[in-house]
Amino acid sequence: MQELVSPDFEKSGGLVPVIVQDYVSHKVLMLAYMDKNAWEKTLSCGKAVYYSRSRKKEWFKGETSGNVQIIKEIFLDCDADTILLKVEQKGGAACHEGYQSCFFRQVVTGTDGKRVIKISDIRIFDPEKVYKKGK
Amino acid sequence: MQELVSPDFEKSGGLVPVIVQDYVSHKVLMLAYMDKNAWEKTLSCGKAVYYSRSRKKEWFKGETSGNVQIIKEIFLDCDADTILLKVEQKGGAACHEGYQSCFFRQVVTGTDGKRVIKISDIRIFDPEKVYKKGK
Repeated sequence: MQELVSPDFEKSGGLVPVIVQDYVSHKVLMLAYMDKNAWEKTLSCGKAVYYSRSRKKEWFKGETSGNVQIIKEIFLDCDADTILLKVEQKGGAACHEGYQSCFFRQVVTGTDGKRVIKISDIRIFDPEKVYKKGK
Repeated sequence: MQELVSPDFEKSGGLVPVIVQDYVSHKVLMLAYMDKNAWEKTLSCGKAVYYSRSRKKEWFKGETSGNVQIIKEIFLDCDADTILLKVEQKGGAACHEGYQSCFFRQVVTGTDGKRVIKISDIRIFDPEKVYKKGK
């Protein structure tokens, strides 16, 4: 056992990327960001709290949709500049577009050899109904 | 099928984070970054090419260690500002410290209630032998 090394929030100007993976299926659900405050809140409350770069404020994941993320395991990488969370995804969908994972677009090669996008995930909810105004 | 949406390299000043996941075990191996050039090289050669932020140059993963990453599947997230690669990890280790995954440090709660770091991954190689000068 070693003393807890804190994520290196200084390296990238205060924000650290957070990979979020489903605890059971091992599916990668999303990439989010945390500042020091969000990191400490996540540790203390056991649910994922991020920092929204677009809204420039703290973001309690699932606040609107109810799709909160219960923290099961936390890892730091070798440089302590990335966090990996294994979570229980409530509601079965992490993406604001209603898919299980934000990575629902696969890059594939079409019959003509050109690379195209294929939707490769399951849509769980209709975002217009959940968020009212869309995103 | 939709035309290929390119990752949004402008949003974060030219670099896009890339989550790398083992194609078979689904283990998250590392987080790296790509610029547009690395993205295009990865697509064309079928092996992972990143941009090293510390060395400020292109980085062909496995160049020194031989632990190259063969691309199996590629995904973009909903905002097209993160890439997910599913890879075959040659040599069985992605981390320059010799572990399977860069996320070999788990944050756990010790018997006294304090949070500590536990090494939770398998070391595959000795970095001093592979890299000669260490990192």
